[in-house]
Amino acid sequence: MKIALGQMQVVPGRPDLNTQTMKKMIREAKDQGAELIIFPELCIPGYLLGDTWEQSSYLSDCVSWGQEIIQLSRDICIVFGNVAVDWERQGADGRVRKYNACFFAHQGKLWGDDNFPYPYRIKTDNSDYRLFDDSRHFFSLSQFAAEEKMDIQQLVQPVHLILNNQPLRLGCLLGEDGRDDDDILKQRMAATLQNSPVDLFINIASSPFASGKNYQRNRILSRQVKEWGVPFAYVNHTGIQNNGKNILPYDGVSSFYDGQGELVDLCAPFTPDLKIIDYAAREDIGVPKPKIPDDRGIKAIYQALTYGTKWFLDSIGMKKVVIGLSGGIDSALNACLYTLILGHENVLLVNMPSIYNSETTKGLAYQLAENLGCYYAVFPIQEAVDYTVKQIEGTPIIHLSGKKEINLVVSSFVKENIQARDRSARILAGLSAIFGGGFTCNANKSEATVGYATLYGDSAGFLAALGDLWKHQVYDLAQYVNREIFGTEVIPQQMIDLVPSAELSPMQNVDEGKGDPIRYPYHDYLFRAFIEPWERKTPEDILAWYQQGILEEKIGCQPGLIKSIFPEDKDFIDDLEYWWKQYTGMGAAKRIQAPPILALSPRAFGLDHREAQNGSYFTKRYAQLKQEILMSDRNSYIPSEL
Amino acid sequence: MKIALGQMQVVPGRPDLNTQTMKKMIREAKDQGAELIIFPELCIPGYLLGDTWEQSSYLSDCVSWGQEIIQLSRDICIVFGNVAVDWERQGADGRVRKYNACFFAHQGKLWGDDNFPYPYRIKTDNSDYRLFDDSRHFFSLSQFAAEEKMDIQQLVQPVHLILNNQPLRLGCLLGEDGRDDDDILKQRMAATLQNSPVDLFINIASSPFASGKNYQRNRILSRQVKEWGVPFAYVNHTGIQNNGKNILPYDGVSSFYDGQGELVDLCAPFTPDLKIIDYAAREDIGVPKPKIPDDRGIKAIYQALTYGTKWFLDSIGMKKVVIGLSGGIDSALNACLYTLILGHENVLLVNMPSIYNSETTKGLAYQLAENLGCYYAVFPIQEAVDYTVKQIEGTPIIHLSGKKEINLVVSSFVKENIQARDRSARILAGLSAIFGGGFTCNANKSEATVGYATLYGDSAGFLAALGDLWKHQVYDLAQYVNREIFGTEVIPQQMIDLVPSAELSPMQNVDEGKGDPIRYPYHDYLFRAFIEPWERKTPEDILAWYQQGILEEKIGCQPGLIKSIFPEDKDFIDDLEYWWKQYTGMGAAKRIQAPPILALSPRAFGLDHREAQNGSYFTKRYAQLKQEILMSDRNSYIPSEL
Repeated sequence: MKIALGQMQVVPGRPDLNTQTMKKMIREAKDQGAELIIFPELCIPGYLLGDTWEQSSYLSDCVSWGQEIIQLSRDICIVFGNVAVDWERQGADGRVRKYNACFFAHQGKLWGDDNFPYPYRIKTDNSDYRLFDDSRHFFSLSQFAAEEKMDIQQLVQPVHLILNNQPLRLGCLLGEDGRDDDDILKQRMAATLQNSPVDLFINIASSPFASGKNYQRNRILSRQVKEWGVPFAYVNHTGIQNNGKNILPYDGVSSFYDGQGELVDLCAPFTPDLKIIDYAAREDIGVPKPKIPDDRGIKAIYQALTYGTKWFLDSIGMKKVVIGLSGGIDSALNACLYTLILGHENVLLVNMPSIYNSETTKGLAYQLAENLGCYYAVFPIQEAVDYTVKQIEGTPIIHLSGKKEINLVVSSFVKENIQARDRSARILAGLSAIFGGGFTCNANKSEATVGYATLYGDSAGFLAALGDLWKHQVYDLAQYVNREIFGTEVIPQQMIDLVPSAELSPMQNVDEGKGDPIRYPYHDYLFRAFIEPWERKTPEDILAWYQQGILEEKIGCQPGLIKSIFPEDKDFIDDLEYWWKQYTGMGAAKRIQAPPILALSPRAFGLDHREAQNGSYFTKRYAQLKQEILMSDRNSYIPSEL
Repeated sequence: MKIALGQMQVVPGRPDLNTQTMKKMIREAKDQGAELIIFPELCIPGYLLGDTWEQSSYLSDCVSWGQEIIQLSRDICIVFGNVAVDWERQGADGRVRKYNACFFAHQGKLWGDDNFPYPYRIKTDNSDYRLFDDSRHFFSLSQFAAEEKMDIQQLVQPVHLILNNQPLRLGCLLGEDGRDDDDILKQRMAATLQNSPVDLFINIASSPFASGKNYQRNRILSRQVKEWGVPFAYVNHTGIQNNGKNILPYDGVSSFYDGQGELVDLCAPFTPDLKIIDYAAREDIGVPKPKIPDDRGIKAIYQALTYGTKWFLDSIGMKKVVIGLSGGIDSALNACLYTLILGHENVLLVNMPSIYNSETTKGLAYQLAENLGCYYAVFPIQEAVDYTVKQIEGTPIIHLSGKKEINLVVSSFVKENIQARDRSARILAGLSAIFGGGFTCNANKSEATVGYATLYGDSAGFLAALGDLWKHQVYDLAQYVNREIFGTEVIPQQMIDLVPSAELSPMQNVDEGKGDPIRYPYHDYLFRAFIEPWERKTPEDILAWYQQGILEEKIGCQPGLIKSIFPEDKDFIDDLEYWWKQYTGMGAAKRIQAPPILALSPRAFGLDHREAQNGSYFTKRYAQLKQEILMSDRNSYIPSEL
């Protein structure tokens, strides 16, 4: 029996295009003799649609496109994801009730489960974590079971079909391929198998790339499939989806496991792929065993980064970009990334020096631009910045109540921000509109955590492609690009070696080794502990680890580093409090207005990390720990005889 | 028996301050002889905390503050909302399991429900609509019942206490005061009463202001309370909460109903209020009946607007603001709003004319500033705009691959945006940093719908206070402020009468009656149909109503208006498609980077309306309708004899 894995590129919000893609794949699968084709979760409507889910006309439209697919199932069984609408019952709060559903179409009609009143299967539990908020839109099987006072076990029977005169019992899972552990998958498979034997499990998914996720999924799938002894087809899609604040690349990597839990075949990552599996029920297949590509390293991040950026540009119809090129590493990496995607003839690199920019970085910027062969221009900003300062200081401000006149004085801190906004909002925004595209935001995750950027200045742009990468990952990628992609030093090594600096004041002179206040080798890891784990760490957790002497081990930075940066406990505590306040204060305020971020990690800023502008807070226990540490610190100064 | 309604101001993210507020109210309630005091939902942690909910140290901290409240319950019963943490069981996806809980503290300990394993009550169903996504954070009673294979009825028994030697049976609801209909409330009350008689229902809530919501709630509560014959205490809080993209004002309006469904007493709106109800169980009280304030009109919107803005300023520590004053109605209303909140000595109004700004609007801006007595300055932008255009056109762009040089030409459309960014990102951002505060975003909801604003220009600012008001509501408020607040024409009537215009080109000359492309008397209502109803309307719905001749009635605009604006069907369709594309295209892209919006309507932009940058889509049925209409249109041109 031949089974086709229909790893298609899903375009969210375009059921017309998705249906067209599916029709083409169905034709090809038939031509190659497939009797069953499996498409991904929600492949007709797309998954991340915002409140388009609340448009009844969109829902009807998707259902009607689904009908066209069902029509094609006369001589092939088609499994596909679509929204199912229950016009009869209400959803929560009077909204239309809808399900994230899996349809089994065969002989021109739908096949279902005797105990479930509709001819489709629905997702057992909603995903309400990371950037998913399924409960806003979908009614789950668990909710259905509770409402009907049924046991959920009764509702997860396999679908019984006759294919090629052979009975075929298909177990159905919807994106339940186990997240961080085996439990969910195990429970779902067990529940189905309690009802009847199963010939094949099908898991349709819409699962975005995250570093290391496939590696983990493969481990879980192999183990569970082996335990239950039933072959398993996992079908995911490619393309991108977004929720406004995050762009998610989908890598596909659809895969087929035999009953021994061995990987039989898989689709290529980040590319649409129709894979035909020649499968004999419950028999091991003696083909050479392929391997799931290792997605834990920098190579996978590079792939996801270029893929996600490319398709986001495509989806918004942007063919050209302008990049502010400072001579630093972030803008250098973006210059390489966009040039690789769009070609040098579609990228304009702009160096915008003020009096604080060194010859070193100006030279490095030009050198990189020359290596890439892009469009290049130098727009000095000093004259405009001086004009702005002069205009602000020279314009009288009159209090109309008392006719009192005041004049304002521009501080050096304000001048720094004036420079940053002059570059982005005055030059890059105008220039990109004329060049015919957008300008990039070059911010990284370390800066985004603590708001180390100027609003409407360097925090602006149409996309923060590097916004989910810590500074050390930006360096790793720069080296990867030189080594593996260009095979030569396109990004000058000096750029990689130079101290990272905003060059906005004499305090940030790179030639004197002066740079950013962020000490990346430590702060990258501290900030990661605030953001990325399921249990987010706070100053209380950090201080407890510090007190126990296990902080470096816990956050994963280099041993011995913390003592070398902070000789005294007080320095350490001041630093911790400063950055926590920045993260929860100005950092949050700036992220709210930040551009979309390409999500690559297990937890990206955007809607993958929910904000609230509530300011900073330190717990009771934090205050205790701080007191304990500072007291013992002070004691060390007290001569022992006292 | 005396019952205290503890309508407190909740500060989200500050359990220390909230506990302090509660302690003070408990002392006052005791002093006044109260035996029972009721506080709002989640009054210790706050409700909208973003992913602070994922910090275990924050959860422990809130639990520990709750312990302090429980200690105070020796001689008073204290009902309060807090997070409850179930460290033993896992939540979804391995995260810590937590509940939105109601605690009954008395005699220094907690009282619960025999069937529920913990000494507190948890919310029955999660709120997953509007900007709430409770399922991300909380495990609900429904989920608990399903997991334990229990009927939810068993888990909603009243709490039995002995107060003053009298038995008291308290029914508990958590924010289940009926949203748009009576059903939820009815079900919850019935479920509790099936277990045992109830002496008093308590509904603790965290319910933000929305226009007309109290009016509706009161109608539902009265009806349901009357039906079940049990007195009812509804306790809500004041203050603001936010999710980053939206600021929500909470009006309180806590209220007490007797067993006949008559309102006995209520707390004042938008102010902390400890109200003591002298209540004899199951007896009607013969006091004069108060009324719930009508919150459907412009007065309530004005109250919520000033209250929400004031407390947001307070919460971020902003004491001064700068406002770009164009002479148009939006900035004029903001100038009044902020002056009323902060005083004229803390508001700097800035007029920033280019060559396209008329003497009319410049004069009106000054006139308003003088009426308000604020700080005032004129910053002409023409010189800076000309400099930018000259710099862009005069700087050679070199293609480093071919050494080819190009020069760019600035179009008039790009010049419009350069002006807008010059005002906001160059002048206002710098000026406000020096003046000591932020600058306001003056955008309204009509503009936000279709992105009729320049990114990093007039769409920028620290808060869009008017961002949830349609243009016609801005006019209504301007007239309200003159009439009811100032009692004189502070906003010049000419400003209200003038054609709304951005004045960015000769095409927008107000003196010639030329203005915005948005025809507010129609588009305000069209856009509202896209956004505000539970079932969002799309071009398909609009075109179907248009075809049936019921569009004006359905969207609520003036009868006869559509035909007068669009003589031909084709004009109507072109306009509809144009704005739908703007709404789903550039509008979405700009909203993603927009400032926080104060939410006042049943559906605000921000997280109350989920975005996705997926571009525009027209359904199959839309295409059919369009063809039908245009065919019949064309037919009308065909002479009848053919």
